[in-house]
Parts: sequence; structure tokens; C-alpha cells
Amino acid sequence: MPRIRLDIAYDGTHFRGWARQSGLRTVQGVLEGALERIIGSPVPLTVAGRTDAGVHATGQVAHADLDDAQWARATQRRRDSVRHEDPVAPLARRLTGVLGQYADLAVLRTSTALEGFDARFSAVWRRYEYRVADAVTGYDPLERHRTTTVRAELDVDAMDAAARSLIGLHDFAAYCKSRPESTTIRTLLDYEWRRDDLGVLVAHVRADAFCHSMVRALVGACVAAGEGKLLPEHLVAIRDARMRTSEFKVLAARGLTLTEVGYPADDLLASRAEQTRRRRDDE
Amino acid sequence: MPRIRLDIAYDGTHFRGWARQSGLRTVQGVLEGALERIIGSPVPLTVAGRTDAGVHATGQVAHADLDDAQWARATQRRRDSVRHEDPVAPLARRLTGVLGQYADLAVLRTSTALEGFDARFSAVWRRYEYRVADAVTGYDPLERHRTTTVRAELDVDAMDAAARSLIGLHDFAAYCKSRPESTTIRTLLDYEWRRDDLGVLVAHVRADAFCHSMVRALVGACVAAGEGKLLPEHLVAIRDARMRTSEFKVLAARGLTLTEVGYPADDLLASRAEQTRRRRDDE
Repeated sequence: MPRIRLDIAYDGTHFRGWARQSGLRTVQGVLEGALERIIGSPVPLTVAGRTDAGVHATGQVAHADLDDAQWARATQRRRDSVRHEDPVAPLARRLTGVLGQYADLAVLRTSTALEGFDARFSAVWRRYEYRVADAVTGYDPLERHRTTTVRAELDVDAMDAAARSLIGLHDFAAYCKSRPESTTIRTLLDYEWRRDDLGVLVAHVRADAFCHSMVRALVGACVAAGEGKLLPEHLVAIRDARMRTSEFKVLAARGLTLTEVGYPADDLLASRAEQTRRRRDDE
Repeated sequence: MPRIRLDIAYDGTHFRGWARQSGLRTVQGVLEGALERIIGSPVPLTVAGRTDAGVHATGQVAHADLDDAQWARATQRRRDSVRHEDPVAPLARRLTGVLGQYADLAVLRTSTALEGFDARFSAVWRRYEYRVADAVTGYDPLERHRTTTVRAELDVDAMDAAARSLIGLHDFAAYCKSRPESTTIRTLLDYEWRRDDLGVLVAHVRADAFCHSMVRALVGACVAAGEGKLLPEHLVAIRDARMRTSEFKVLAARGLTLTEVGYPADDLLASRAEQTRRRRDDE
């Protein structure tokens, strides 16, 4: 059964998150609808990062398995069209035709998946960006959909120091909405804060995987540090107490964007997927 | 009569341009409504750049003249509030309260205008940015409101060369929607194209003033150059023929943002305004 990979971007503002939910507009729902319209029968998607309502993505990845009839429809060519090296490459443009030219959801690329590739289980890390405008930045209406605003003036050096203190392999239960039977042990690979050219505070966060609402909790804790309410050692103490706390807020979804999903070298895709599947069931 | 200056930003997507029009949602209409709600009586605005429907701004400037009663309301302080050096500075935050925290229109700053300042007639130049995504860039849903997409792959060097060939003091009638009794002679100070970090083609255009739809025509001509349909010498020949042509398209408003308005040194504000008023009636 051929597997296809889809590279996806969306403005999450008007979606109720990734996962299909009856009667609600979700990314998976809209995308599977577009695929079915082209391919003629249902095509379930598996995704790297199941984003919450309001969360955006510029580098989301999903896969789907097609049977022979579906493959034939997915790779159908117009008589006069250019022959592509990958027969499924032109599907991206056909999806744009269905989704619309200026839609809030776009399929950037469609490709035949490499042997052993699994969008979810082959992934070795996910990278997110979080954007905060404070009293110094001012407010840019053109960026409002992907930026949270806070009234205070934030100390970016304090935020960056607090962020870096959390890096490493730890139990992040204090920074997760707990789900029974899911581990909250994660490897936080990168976490840093800096101001961009326009003064917006931008966090880059990368981990092997994130548990539910983890990025927004990590961001909330650092904003409290930027306001002078918490010190780096407090963030570490909270983490090591492994209990949720009211000392910081979980920040809004609007500032959060999934920017990249990392996969291992081609020949390690299958073994990585096998290893992840054995270790845990969520991401 | 005290004059106040307002620095303004907006996402033009859901506005029918700057100028107040009965029954339509315009920037001037919404902003004058918010001012009247705070000040208690009508406050007409004069603006530096009367943007068209769908055009955005990050650096728009306007002014308003207040009578004594209006000034008292505009500078009213809460008993416990901080005293600002400029008594009209806190008005910006009160306007945000009326317009809403995540509105598509924001007043970035309110200040007492300097002697002789006129938002429209003191201005010595206007700067615009235009953003185009082509086949190389891909499409970013989070930037869709301020980016035009074209299907072709554009040659940015050809576009930049074509842009630079148009710079100088010329009659730009070929690149303007003509209005009777208005001059189309303008000084194009800067015009350049480059790709940003993500590959989006960004134009920076600056002139003493622009006539109607001039930036979008200049952009359309350079996109035709980027597609290989026109050469720099064609753009110059079209300009010097001073007649509108069908050899290029006027591009969509969505890609266009007014980013900055330039004013002369403080002591030259009044004489500049006087000089501009004598020279022309439009901008």
C-alpha cells in the first residue's frame, strides 16, 4: 500500500484544532474532505503534532495510506501536464484548487513517503515558536492572529535565562495537562527567548515530543519570569515538584505555531517508528 | 486650538479604505467613531496617506484639531493615573479600550502636534511595502492577508533592475489612475525588490507622494518584468509615453502596506506644509 507524505501549513484561528470532531471545523476534517473530493473515497490522516484549537502551523507533517484505486486517482495526470519525478507531487496543487487560493489551510507539498516513514512515530523532535508583544513592542494588527499581547514590559534576558534552566530530560508533569496512562517525561532540547527586529518576544522551543498544553505552560512560566514574579530557580523547583501550580498562567493558543518536525536519516525512519511506538502512545 | 497627532496601524482586509463613506466600514469612520465616544463630539481627521480598500498600514499618520472642551476630555486623567509629559499620550490606551485588544485597527501613539505640523501637507515622503509570493516561495496562510500570490516563478534581479530604472522626477501618468486637475508628476525616491528570509518578494517604494493606484501599477509592471514579459527599457518607455497601457496588471490591494511617512525637521514643518499646499491638492 503506497504511503504519501503531506507538508501542511495553517492559520489556526478559525479551526477547532487538528483532530476531526463531528460538526466542528478542524484541520483534519477540512483536509480529509478535500482529499476525499479528489480521490473519491475516505483517506484518514496521521499527523506529527495534534495541535489544539487556535494553534497555527507552518511545518506540520501528516501521512496517509492509499489503496491502488486511490493511488490511481491521486496521481492522475492531465493529458498535457508536465511529468514529475514523484507522481504524487502535483496533488498539492490540486488540493489548493479545492481548498482555495487564499485559504487558511494549505498543503505545501505532497510526496511519496520513504520506506518506513510514519509522520507521527518516525518524528524525533517537534519545534514550536511562540510570539508575545509587550508594552515595548506595541501592537501590530497585521500580526494579531499569531501574537499574544501582554500589558507589562517584559525582561527578555530574565525570560531567556529561565527558559534555558528547564532544558534536558525531565518529568514535565508540572507543565502538562495530565492524561491518565501517559508519561510526562520529555527531553526539552532547546528553549530560548529573544526579541525580533520589531521588538516582538519570540520563543523557540524544541523537544522530542510535547505533552498536552506543555509549550503554553512553559511560555507562561517564562512570562512570569519576565515580569519579575518568578526566578529561574523557581521554574526548576516547580518542575521538580511535578505538580501543577497557579504561580503562572498557561498562555493563549493564538501566539503558538508548530514550525518544524524533525525526522532521522532515511535508513532510520522505520527503526525510530518502532522504538517510539514501544515507548509511548501519546505525543 | 491644540492639534493632536495620531500614529496608526491597521489590517485593511475588512475596511473599505481610509476615507469615511456613509454605510461602509472605513478606517476613518471607525477611528472618528472611537474618538467621538471618548471626547463626546465629532473630531474630523486629516491623514497622510488616503489608502484604498484592502490596503494596510503600519505607519499611518493623522491629525485632529480639538477645541478647549474636546482637549479637556481628551486629556482627562483618572485620579490615580501616572502623569505623562505629554497630556494626550494616555489617549492611545483609551482608544485601544474602545477599539478592542485584538482589533484590526490600532492607535499606536497619540501626541501633541508640533507647531506647524500637518499630517498631510507637512509630509515629505511616503514609504510603502508590497509583498508577493511566487512559485518558489510557497504560500503561508499566516501571511495571506498581506501577501499577493502569483503562480509563476519570478526573477527578482530583473524586477529590481526594472524598479530602479523608474526612479527620479517624472510624469507617472502611465502608472496612475488619472484624476482631472491633478498632477501626475512625482519624485520616485526609492524602488527596489528583494526576497526576504522566507523567499517572499518584497518591494520597498518611496516617493514624495503617490497618485491613485500608483504603487500597485509600479508593482504590476515589475512583476511583468519578473515573468520575462517586459524589460526595464519597456517600463521606462511606457512611463515616458505618459499613457495607461494594458501591458501589465495593477496588482491586488492585499499585498500593499503603508509603512512610514516622513516629515522634515521640526522647524521646517510649517514652511513645508505651506509649500505643498501651494503646489498641489491631491497626494
